Amino acid sequence: DHVEDIIPENHIAHYDLNKLHSTSNAAVNKEHVLILTPMQTFHKQFWENILQMSYPRELIELGFIVPRSPSGDEALKKLEAAVKKIQSSKKNERFAKVTILRQESPSFDKLEEKERHALEVQKKRRSVMALARNELLFSTLGPYISWVLWLDADIVETPVNVIQDMTAHDKPVLAANVYQRFYNKDEKKDDIRPYDFNNWQESDIGRELASKMSDDEIIVEGYAEIATYRPLMAHFYEPNNPITEEMILDGVGGGCTLVKAEVHRDGAMFPNFPFYHLIETEGFAKMAKRLNYEVIGLPNYLVYHIEE
Amino acid sequence: DHVEDIIPENHIAHYDLNKLHSTSNAAVNKEHVLILTPMQTFHKQFWENILQMSYPRELIELGFIVPRSPSGDEALKKLEAAVKKIQSSKKNERFAKVTILRQESPSFDKLEEKERHALEVQKKRRSVMALARNELLFSTLGPYISWVLWLDADIVETPVNVIQDMTAHDKPVLAANVYQRFYNKDEKKDDIRPYDFNNWQESDIGRELASKMSDDEIIVEGYAEIATYRPLMAHFYEPNNPITEEMILDGVGGGCTLVKAEVHRDGAMFPNFPFYHLIETEGFAKMAKRLNYEVIGLPNYLVYHIEE
Ligand SMILES: Nc1nc2c(ncn2[C@@H]2O[C@H](COP(=O)(O)OP(=O)(O)O)[C@@H](O)[C@H]2O)c(=O)[nH]1
Ligand SMILES: Nc1nc2c(ncn2[C@@H]2O[C@H](COP(=O)(O)OP(=O)(O)O)[C@@H](O)[C@H]2O)c(=O)[nH]1
Ligand SMILES: [Mn+2]
Ligand SMILES: [Mn+2]
Repeated sequence: DHVEDIIPENHIAHYDLNKLHSTSNAAVNKEHVLILTPMQTFHKQFWENILQMSYPRELIELGFIVPRSPSGDEALKKLEAAVKKIQSSKKNERFAKVTILRQESPSFDKLEEKERHALEVQKKRRSVMALARNELLFSTLGPYISWVLWLDADIVETPVNVIQDMTAHDKPVLAANVYQRFYNKDEKKDDIRPYDFNNWQESDIGRELASKMSDDEIIVEGYAEIATYRPLMAHFYEPNNPITEEMILDGVGGGCTLVKAEVHRDGAMFPNFPFYHLIETEGFAKMAKRLNYEVIGLPNYLVYHIEE
Repeated sequence: DHVEDIIPENHIAHYDLNKLHSTSNAAVNKEHVLILTPMQTFHKQFWENILQMSYPRELIELGFIVPRSPSGDEALKKLEAAVKKIQSSKKNERFAKVTILRQESPSFDKLEEKERHALEVQKKRRSVMALARNELLFSTLGPYISWVLWLDADIVETPVNVIQDMTAHDKPVLAANVYQRFYNKDEKKDDIRPYDFNNWQESDIGRELASKMSDDEIIVEGYAEIATYRPLMAHFYEPNNPITEEMILDGVGGGCTLVKAEVHRDGAMFPNFPFYHLIETEGFAKMAKRLNYEVIGLPNYLVYHIEE
């Protein structure tokens, strides 16, 4: 269960964090990217999508955290087989490192999309997810990592250049727009629809709601029960505009969000307690802002969530 | 500047965080301890004190973060020489791993004890220290670490069994009482006096002060300008009582504070922004409490800060 890293003979490692850069030219500058994924279900398409990414694999580390639950057991088995296959292939096809963690904190077992989105369940789930993301982050972020890409296990399609494209913006926190492919029965054709509503801008109504809440209340975006009228990035997609278009955000999701490692190193994590009435990835965005970092979204840069 | 960790041939590492324990019998259970030290000045006595600790060295990792400043340059040179010496000695005398980081975030250069304790300077310094501690923590906490011992670089004397003694309490966050040896001119004898006032219990007056503050104001303990009348652990030392006596705390310092790794992994870090009007180690204690962990102090367990 426990394979130790072999460390240099003299057991000393030096790193100058001041010479560690995260730039708009990440691949050329050989910047290390850590892709972090909390994984309840292993989807073949997620893995294939990772394998088709064009960023140099020797600069990519992968980190997974799998819950202690029957569905976690199944995901782990499939993930291990997939990882073993690629990591025992030719040297130049391997990832720099793969870390698989079994979660310590409690987890919900697999819920249907509908169930898991019910407001009360969602608050508990988001709090559980915050702990899982923190366990994963604190255990895998080495001193040589320049970028962290948070990529959920049910993101099954991204552009092949997603890492190059996103790092090119050179932003501290940058969220892609998470959509979903589906068959549109009314129009009888394949179609797409917005999926992730956690990428948003704060609104006056949102601010007012928060100001009236008791310290321990939280807002989770995307629920009719708490109408914030926040502008949601999901609704700003303009197919005819450039994919590089940016918008300022105040909350982000974890679907496909790129973070400069220094933002996490300064302390930005995923609060599981109300932080300005926000938790998990939305609380993380607020924390990044408190640490004086910009949070940006790419409304026209689409990635796709699986349809279950 | 950059020595990479060698990783296993197949580049896969598995860890079950659920089987990773931090228990009252740490040495026997072979639990890994990470000692973390922000270091502006290298004191020979600090290093000698580390070397005399009786916890098995193969279970100890050390992590240092040194500021980018003239005094940091000097500390780095001395630290490197000391580390090199021990890590190239007999295998069984080496530490499991030593990581030395050069700080990315800005730092103050060395200030006299008096200057650096002035209230306004202190607020800025504490905020800088928070970032340094986070950089160090996020870059070094591997998935196999059970305990983190925060030990400041000017703690020059601890009991040899400090790790065994402190882990034996099996507490999520546990602070030793930081004193200072000095020559008492009045009584003409060697004496000791309290040094660190960051280990405290919240008081009604402290709570009231906080409740009247604007969101961005902070309280740093130990200043006449902000009289909180908080019970300070420094004043609870009873030489005739057992060294194992515990007291509940609400704020801690970083002098000699032991933390279960799971507390950090759940997300507890050192806020450099006001968190319940607290920052750095005091903010960390509050965050640990928000994550439902106990914060405890050992009033009769003394460690000593250098006298400059
Ligand atoms: N480690 C861990 N991952 C989980 C857990 N629940 C969900 N996940 C993963 O976390 C990510 C987000 O969860 P998901 O259920 O897809 O949320 P939604 O799509 O926003 O409703 C996905 O990658 C899931 O596989 C859990 O309890 N533990
Ligand atoms: N990395 C880093 N360490 C620092 C800096 N300033 C102080 N330190 C270290 O942080 C610890 C606490 O600082 P110190 O000045 O002793 O604070 P005090 O004793 O509480 O007044 C000590 O180990 C210092 O060597 C800094 O700017 N950067
Ligand atoms: Mn999902
Ligand atoms: Mn000191």
